[in-house]
Amino acid sequence: MTSKIALLQANPIVGDIGGNAEMICDLAEIAAEAGASFAVTTELAISGYPPRDLLLQSDFVNECHNVASALETEIPVLVGTPVPPHTDRSLPGNGVVRAGDSVREVTRKQLLPTYDVFDEARYFEADERPGIARTIAGLDIGVTICEDAWQHCGATPNDYESDPIAQIVEWGRQGVVLDATVNLSASPYHANKSGIRIAVARSAASSLNHPFLLANQVGGNDDLLFDGRSIIAWPDGTVVIGPAWSQGVLLTDLSDPKACTWIGEGEIRILKPDEDLEEDEGDLLDAIIIGLSDYCMKSGISKIVLGMSGGIDSALAACVASAAVGAQNVTGISMPSKHSSQHSIDDAKATAEALGLDFSIQPITDLHDASELALRGILEGGHPVAGENLQARLRGLIVMAHANAHGAMAIATGNKSELGQGYCTLYGDMAGGYAPLGDLYKMEVYALARLFNERMGVEAVTESTLTKPPSAELAPDQKDEDSLPPYPILDEILRLHIEDGLDATQITAKGHDKKTVKEVLTRLAKNEHKRWQMPPAPRVSKRAFGQGWRQPLAARHDWRQ
Amino acid sequence: MTSKIALLQANPIVGDIGGNAEMICDLAEIAAEAGASFAVTTELAISGYPPRDLLLQSDFVNECHNVASALETEIPVLVGTPVPPHTDRSLPGNGVVRAGDSVREVTRKQLLPTYDVFDEARYFEADERPGIARTIAGLDIGVTICEDAWQHCGATPNDYESDPIAQIVEWGRQGVVLDATVNLSASPYHANKSGIRIAVARSAASSLNHPFLLANQVGGNDDLLFDGRSIIAWPDGTVVIGPAWSQGVLLTDLSDPKACTWIGEGEIRILKPDEDLEEDEGDLLDAIIIGLSDYCMKSGISKIVLGMSGGIDSALAACVASAAVGAQNVTGISMPSKHSSQHSIDDAKATAEALGLDFSIQPITDLHDASELALRGILEGGHPVAGENLQARLRGLIVMAHANAHGAMAIATGNKSELGQGYCTLYGDMAGGYAPLGDLYKMEVYALARLFNERMGVEAVTESTLTKPPSAELAPDQKDEDSLPPYPILDEILRLHIEDGLDATQITAKGHDKKTVKEVLTRLAKNEHKRWQMPPAPRVSKRAFGQGWRQPLAARHDWRQ
Repeated sequence: MTSKIALLQANPIVGDIGGNAEMICDLAEIAAEAGASFAVTTELAISGYPPRDLLLQSDFVNECHNVASALETEIPVLVGTPVPPHTDRSLPGNGVVRAGDSVREVTRKQLLPTYDVFDEARYFEADERPGIARTIAGLDIGVTICEDAWQHCGATPNDYESDPIAQIVEWGRQGVVLDATVNLSASPYHANKSGIRIAVARSAASSLNHPFLLANQVGGNDDLLFDGRSIIAWPDGTVVIGPAWSQGVLLTDLSDPKACTWIGEGEIRILKPDEDLEEDEGDLLDAIIIGLSDYCMKSGISKIVLGMSGGIDSALAACVASAAVGAQNVTGISMPSKHSSQHSIDDAKATAEALGLDFSIQPITDLHDASELALRGILEGGHPVAGENLQARLRGLIVMAHANAHGAMAIATGNKSELGQGYCTLYGDMAGGYAPLGDLYKMEVYALARLFNERMGVEAVTESTLTKPPSAELAPDQKDEDSLPPYPILDEILRLHIEDGLDATQITAKGHDKKTVKEVLTRLAKNEHKRWQMPPAPRVSKRAFGQGWRQPLAARHDWRQ
Repeated sequence: MTSKIALLQANPIVGDIGGNAEMICDLAEIAAEAGASFAVTTELAISGYPPRDLLLQSDFVNECHNVASALETEIPVLVGTPVPPHTDRSLPGNGVVRAGDSVREVTRKQLLPTYDVFDEARYFEADERPGIARTIAGLDIGVTICEDAWQHCGATPNDYESDPIAQIVEWGRQGVVLDATVNLSASPYHANKSGIRIAVARSAASSLNHPFLLANQVGGNDDLLFDGRSIIAWPDGTVVIGPAWSQGVLLTDLSDPKACTWIGEGEIRILKPDEDLEEDEGDLLDAIIIGLSDYCMKSGISKIVLGMSGGIDSALAACVASAAVGAQNVTGISMPSKHSSQHSIDDAKATAEALGLDFSIQPITDLHDASELALRGILEGGHPVAGENLQARLRGLIVMAHANAHGAMAIATGNKSELGQGYCTLYGDMAGGYAPLGDLYKMEVYALARLFNERMGVEAVTESTLTKPPSAELAPDQKDEDSLPPYPILDEILRLHIEDGLDATQITAKGHDKKTVKEVLTRLAKNEHKRWQMPPAPRVSKRAFGQGWRQPLAARHDWRQ
């Protein structure tokens, strides 16, 4: 009989130590019942990832460590947890304890990512070697934590000085025989990242010459998403991969990929040595929905309210909200002004009806007139943008009034292209507790709207919404293209700069108009102050506004002229 | 003749490479004319500190390095600048180049602070040794950068593995004779920090057995403030310290503290070996004013608008705004509702008149009635906070309308005690481009208001404002104390938790009521979502909401129960 190892693909709530402990025990019990000999959690499973500045509180670290060490499980579990500092002048570790049999600390993370959304050098002291869990259910197991495995195949943005996988390989040369190496991960999602993660696992298994098992966190925590997709890789390149976006147990038979099973929603995939995972186009849509639904679930929010303009962004946002908390818990408000077209109201209404959400029409015409009258002294002779913003802010006021009155969360419906250009109103359409589309370029919003329609089998987003020219409708006959380049071009310029780090010269060399590129990058820099105050948005791209985006407001100085 | 070293206490603009280069040349010229043999800038003077993610753009780093190296100065200058990475798989350095004579790179920073407001491990690769500038104007000079000097006297939150000051001391033992060691700093201000900085300099000079010279950045960049106060410390503990909050040149005579001079506004102080610097009570007020004025100056903002409620916060905010951009450039708007007292209008008016700013009264009664009428369907049967927030948001709407119409920046007037308790309205009183009082506890707001009056010699903040019970006036007879503990108690609990890191048990042990402590800490955690969207506020305390404060929104889960 071969020992079976269970990877607990968990969806913890950051800060909820007790609840996370219970979740680990529940998953371990499921694993034990299915015949697992021992189990492995995801990184920092007991605190949830990322705990951020909770880690600066020593009693939080101690509590995590105590609870993780005291877990009463039927089978041994390698539990990811913060562990206390070695001295009172050093930082805690990002560690692993062995619970359920002989309780002890196994290892601490060596490579501390401090880039993008990661701040681990802020919180942790690095270890100098990987760990070994000896005779755990009869096996000897190498233990690494997330980034520890990424240096080996060069998948980090910059080189670390050490390579934990190479260290284990070296131990093997010196006679330390291991049955497998595990990796406790909280590796955030972004589109098309799973291929890199598979390459990391294959590279490790190949060098180690034994199976490499990666348990990855699943679910959303604030603006970070984790797709799960835990991995078992064999030295020949065969890979078993767990499903995305679903909590469960990946039960591993080290001797036979085909005998691996998944307990939970979704299915495993087996990839041959030369086979890659095709990321489904629907992955991005799932990501956005999970981000919003987990944010609501973990914050105790059951209801959502949003303004529905009849445009593509609020239409998709309504679809996502319905999928996240159920259409019966979503309120859409159409707030036409004198600049709104009839098709705006009709399209919003059609979407609401197709989704089955609570819908009302609250014209802002009277309130807009009353405000213009009351503020005539202020608006007179001033910049016309003040009048346009007034409408957006009256709508924000109404949506927030509904939210505050009825305990719902307002969502902001803006997309990354708009936010990147400051083509949005602070305290107007930017108002809300979460911005589900905040990391989607405009053309992605269109694609996901069509996909949502396909999935539902009805036209939740109307053909009219999908095809009419985008307009903020804040002035007569206004079109987005009066102020911005066509979205396919805008998206591409923003993507080249934000995701790929190209500068104006390099983007122009790709065939884009020099003046357009300059204008786009200048608007991006000059509107940093708006993004400083934007709500959290689920991160789905290689680089998102938010925690991983730390521009100085002083980026308003266009140093390239 | 002794060589004179000039410390260039500079106020750079982040990202403005050309402007910063010019500023360095101008200061170096002043220094040369005053007889300096060579000059030393502050840390990263050419990019300004903190450049944040601009450092992720390789062309930005290259441009900084090229411009710094090409500076044409009459005397040699040690210039702080980002320097390119050693390989394409490593990070840039936080370095120093020698310009003006034999151009070369001198050193890179060794100790990279990655805590509090610092993220240097995100941006830089550490060096392994300090630098030496040989025969610069005939002297041999040790070169360190900011944090490099802080490990030596244990002034960092945690220990680093190396101690650059001790390394230079060791070189001395091995026969390397240096005339002095310099330190290029961008050491941010917080209240009562200058004493620590002086201790750092004294400790270094004492161990090195030669003078230690620290050039510190001055001025505000976004939410970070730098107080200047460049330091020369001698081995016997004598210290010469430059003035705070003012750009200029500190001209050093290594052989005679009394012969040191300051060129610029303000005056130097000489401290005897056992003497400490008393921080003036006015320091905090200066800090707040500089924060706002530099933010405006560096962003091209010349006008400020704010709502004036007749309460203490908006009164002090008006004072600070007047001091920052001139009363003639400030607009105060009183926006009484049916819940406002007559004294609120009178007090606001009195403050505006005393300061001489543009003032108008814009009652929101009609607009409030119109909104309540238009939103009756939404508000009916809902939580009454929706109606209260409606008033705050109508005021936000009016202030922002003025800002957008007339190109002014709105400022948010909330204080740290309110923000810490969520006793504020998103998109209402939290609206604005900057929150000058956002890191001041309520009782500090009172103290600074009295101090401002003293300085001006008139009652800018009226006695009535200073003594009436604080009220948001959003409901009949509402008082802050109905919802919050008395401010002296609230402030102390918040300070013990936020600044000193004490938990509920420890705070209770200090004599505070257990239930009150629990309520305060729970409200702090549960309102993280509001602070996520707050505007930048000048950091004046040991720990401020903003860039150095990274709570998960999931902190809403009170893990202590």
